[in-house]
Amino acid sequence: MASSRPRASAETAPLFAHGIRALNVGVSEFALSPRAHGATVLELDWRPPAGGDRDLGLLLARLEDDPDDPIGSQVTTANARALERILAARPMLVGMGRAADLLPGLGPRHVLHAGPPIEWPRMCGPMRGAVIGAILYEGWAATPEAARRLADDGAVSFAPCHHFSAVGPMAGVVSPSMPVFIVENAAGGNRAYAIQNEGLGKVLRFGAYGAEVLDRLRWMNETLAPALTRAIGAHGPIDLKNLTAQALQMGDECHNRNVAASSLFARLIAPALVRTSPSEVAAAVLEFLEANNHFYLNLSMAASKATLDGAHGITGSTVVTVMARNGVEVGVRLSGTGEAWFTAPAQIPDGLYFPGYGPADANPDLGDSAITETAGLGGLAMAAAPAIVRFIGGAAEEAMATTKRMYRITLARNNDYGIPALGFAGTPTGIDARRVVDSGIAPIFNTGIAHREAGVGQVGAGIAKAPLACFADALRELGRRLGVPM
Amino acid sequence: MASSRPRASAETAPLFAHGIRALNVGVSEFALSPRAHGATVLELDWRPPAGGDRDLGLLLARLEDDPDDPIGSQVTTANARALERILAARPMLVGMGRAADLLPGLGPRHVLHAGPPIEWPRMCGPMRGAVIGAILYEGWAATPEAARRLADDGAVSFAPCHHFSAVGPMAGVVSPSMPVFIVENAAGGNRAYAIQNEGLGKVLRFGAYGAEVLDRLRWMNETLAPALTRAIGAHGPIDLKNLTAQALQMGDECHNRNVAASSLFARLIAPALVRTSPSEVAAAVLEFLEANNHFYLNLSMAASKATLDGAHGITGSTVVTVMARNGVEVGVRLSGTGEAWFTAPAQIPDGLYFPGYGPADANPDLGDSAITETAGLGGLAMAAAPAIVRFIGGAAEEAMATTKRMYRITLARNNDYGIPALGFAGTPTGIDARRVVDSGIAPIFNTGIAHREAGVGQVGAGIAKAPLACFADALRELGRRLGVPM
Repeated sequence: MASSRPRASAETAPLFAHGIRALNVGVSEFALSPRAHGATVLELDWRPPAGGDRDLGLLLARLEDDPDDPIGSQVTTANARALERILAARPMLVGMGRAADLLPGLGPRHVLHAGPPIEWPRMCGPMRGAVIGAILYEGWAATPEAARRLADDGAVSFAPCHHFSAVGPMAGVVSPSMPVFIVENAAGGNRAYAIQNEGLGKVLRFGAYGAEVLDRLRWMNETLAPALTRAIGAHGPIDLKNLTAQALQMGDECHNRNVAASSLFARLIAPALVRTSPSEVAAAVLEFLEANNHFYLNLSMAASKATLDGAHGITGSTVVTVMARNGVEVGVRLSGTGEAWFTAPAQIPDGLYFPGYGPADANPDLGDSAITETAGLGGLAMAAAPAIVRFIGGAAEEAMATTKRMYRITLARNNDYGIPALGFAGTPTGIDARRVVDSGIAPIFNTGIAHREAGVGQVGAGIAKAPLACFADALRELGRRLGVPM
Repeated sequence: MASSRPRASAETAPLFAHGIRALNVGVSEFALSPRAHGATVLELDWRPPAGGDRDLGLLLARLEDDPDDPIGSQVTTANARALERILAARPMLVGMGRAADLLPGLGPRHVLHAGPPIEWPRMCGPMRGAVIGAILYEGWAATPEAARRLADDGAVSFAPCHHFSAVGPMAGVVSPSMPVFIVENAAGGNRAYAIQNEGLGKVLRFGAYGAEVLDRLRWMNETLAPALTRAIGAHGPIDLKNLTAQALQMGDECHNRNVAASSLFARLIAPALVRTSPSEVAAAVLEFLEANNHFYLNLSMAASKATLDGAHGITGSTVVTVMARNGVEVGVRLSGTGEAWFTAPAQIPDGLYFPGYGPADANPDLGDSAITETAGLGGLAMAAAPAIVRFIGGAAEEAMATTKRMYRITLARNNDYGIPALGFAGTPTGIDARRVVDSGIAPIFNTGIAHREAGVGQVGAGIAKAPLACFADALRELGRRLGVPM
C-alpha cells in the first residue's frame, strides 16, 4: 500500500476519475483534493515513529530486533529474559511487619512517598497533607502547624517508596511505625512491601489528616495488622496471582476496581482470622474488610512490585519495570536502566468527579498504584472490568478498546490472567519502551483523583496517561549504556 | 420486503438479470434457482409463527395487544401488572427455620422434589437417590434398601417444592427436618423458601446418598443453619436484590456461576456470624462458605421464587412464573393459568463433562433452579458471565448472543440488574409465553448435569432449552380461561 499525497489536483484528477481508492497517511487535509474529485480516501491515523525525532528514530532502529546487530540482539535477549521472569513470578503474601523493621536503611525520621524523588518544598498538596498526617501519627509533632514546621526545617527525610521495594497508593506515604504487607515472589525470592488500604473518603493517602484519619491509622496499626498477621501465619502464604486471576474473571482490573478480589480475600482469610483473634477483634476486622472494596488494591500493588522487581536490572532490556507518580511528575524506570528515573510533568486525570468537585479541584496524577499497570493490570486490563466505567467515566466499549490498544505496546499476553470478554486472551504484559515511543501510544492509568489541597481527600476517579517523554529519555539512557553512538 | 419463491426459473430469470436482489424466507432450497441466475439472495431464517399450527396462530392473534379486542386488552393490562410486580420485587433474606415448621401442610412423611409433580415409580435416578438420602437422613429407614422399600410401599408422600413456595436445585429434595432459608418479598409480603447449598461433588441434590453426604447434611442442620440463623438475626434482613445486582457486575449470572455473590454474602454475614457463634463454629461455617462457590445459588433461587410468586395469579397474564424440571419432564406455569402445570419431556443438556463422563451418563434436565431464568437471571443473563463458558462450554460471544436472543421473548429489561458488557442494559425479564410460541425461541437454562443413576452425583454442566410445547399448551389453557373460541 503506497501513501497518496496529491499536492497538485490537476495531476491527480484523472487517476481518481477512474474510481481509484486512495489511502491518506498523516495530515488529513491532504485528502481534501482527491475527495473533491470523487475519490474514496481512507484516512490512516499515522504518525512518524518517535514523534518525528530523527535521532530518536535512529536509536529505535538500532534497538530493534536484528540478529545481525549485536545491540539489537542483546535487547531481544534481555527482553525475553525480563518477560520470562514477569510471567513466571509467583507473588505470595507471606506476612506483615513494621516498616522500620523490614525496610533496610529506613531512618527513624524517614517518610516514604509515591512516585519519583521529590522534596518537601515541591510536593503537591495531598502529599504534603499525608506527610503532615504521618508526622502526627508518629508523634513527631502535636499539631498540623508543628508538623509543617518540622518538614520546613528539614527535620524529616524523604525518599520514594520504590527505593525500598515498597509501593503506596496516591500520596503513598509510609512512616517507620506503619505496618506493611510482605509479598514474596516465590519464583525470584525477592520481596515487596505495601501499607494496608484505609478505604475511601477522608484517608491519609488522599491527603487528609484529621482525627478520624489518625484514629483509623492507629486502629489499623494496633488491631487490624496484628490480627491479619496472625491470620496469615495460621493460613500460610496466600497466592496473590491466583486471587488476581480469579478477580479478573469477576470484573476487577485490580487497580481501580477491587471489589471481587477484596471479597475473595476476606472470605479466604476469615476462618484463620476467627481462629487466631478474640471474637470482638475478628468481628471488627471482618467489618472493616466488608466495608472496604479497595482493600485488595495494596496487595495487588505489592504483588505487581514483587513481580516487576524480579525482572529489573537486566542489561539491555527495554521492558518498563516502574511507572509511578508523585503528583508533580511521572517517573519511569526500565529493567535495563538501573536506578535512574525518567520523569515528565504529571497530567490532570480525565474522569468523573464526586458531587461539588471538578477538574479545577484536581491534583495532577498521583501514586505508586501505576505499578499495577506496569504489571499488565489496571488500565491495561480494563477489558476485564467493563463496570469500571461507572466509576471513572466512558463506555464499556472503551474499556475493550483500551486493552486492545495496550497490546500494541506490550511484548506478551499473560495467560495466567485471562480476560473473559476477549475470549480469555491474556492481559497485555511487558510494556516495551520502544513500542511506546515508536507508536506514540501511552500506557493508560486507571486512577483515583485527589483534591489539590492538603487535608481534603478524594474528589473523583478517572484515567491518565504516562507522558511519552519519560520513555524516550529512558531509551536514550539505555542507548548510551549499550554504546549506541548518538 | 416481499418473499421470493421462484418455482419456475424461466419466469424469474429476466428479473435477476437486471441485478435485482432477493430475500428468501423459509426453505433455503428456494434460493438455489435465483442464485444460479446470478442474483444476490439474502436468506432469512424465518419460521411460521406458532410452528405453523393454524389454531395456535389464531389464538396468538387473539391474545396480542389490541385495544379494540377486550381479550387482547386484558392480556396487555395483566402482563403490565405482572411485570410491574416482578420489577418492584424486593427479596430479603429474613431468617431460617425447619421445613416442617414453615411450609404449611407439609406432612411428617412428606418429601418435596424439583419440577412438576412426579411419583416415585417414574422418578429419574438422581431424584430417587436424593429421596433415599432424605429418608436415611430423616431416620425413616436405616439402609438404602430399606429406604427404597419404604418408597416402593407408598409410605412416603411426594409433592413439588413449588406447591409450597419452595425451590430446590437439581433433585430439589426437601424433607421435614431440613432447615430452609426464608426470603420475603418486601414489596408483596409473600415468602419463598430454599434449602442450603451443599457445595459440589457428592451431594444429595445430584443423587448421592453416601455417608459423607448424610454427615454433611447433619452438620448443615445442626451447626450451619443455627449459626446462619443467629447471624441473619443479628445482621437484620439481607437485601438479595442488591447482592444479585452487584454479582451481575462481577461475572455471575446467579444460576451456574455464583462465586461473586457467594463471596459477597460470606463477607457480608461474617461479622454478625462471629459475634453470635462460638469461634470454632464461626470458623467452620466460614470455611464452608469459603469452599462453596455455589452457596448463593439457593438464595438466588429463593429470591427468584419470591419475586415471581408476587406476580403469579393475574388473570389473563401470559408471563411465565415457573419453569422447573424433575429430570423426566419440564413444567411451566403462567401467571394467568393458576396452579396448572404444562409439561413436556426434558432434554439431555448440551455441555461439558467431568473427566470420565459423557452424554450417555447424563440425566435429562433437572431442578427448580430454572426459577432463576424465569426471573431473568441464569441463561437469560449469560452476557453478564462470559467466564461461565469455561464451565458449561461455548465461547464468550455465545453468552452475549444468548442474552440478546432472550430479549426477543421477554417484555422488559430489569434496570436494577445491569449487564456491563451490554452497556449496562437490564437483564431480559418477564418471559412472555406468546413471544416464545410466536418466535419459536426457547428460554435457555444454564444447568448442572447429574448422572442418570442414583448415588453417583454431578458429571458436568451445560445448557438446556425449555420445550416449546409447554408454552403452547399453557397458552391454549389461558385462551380457554379467557373464553377464546377454539
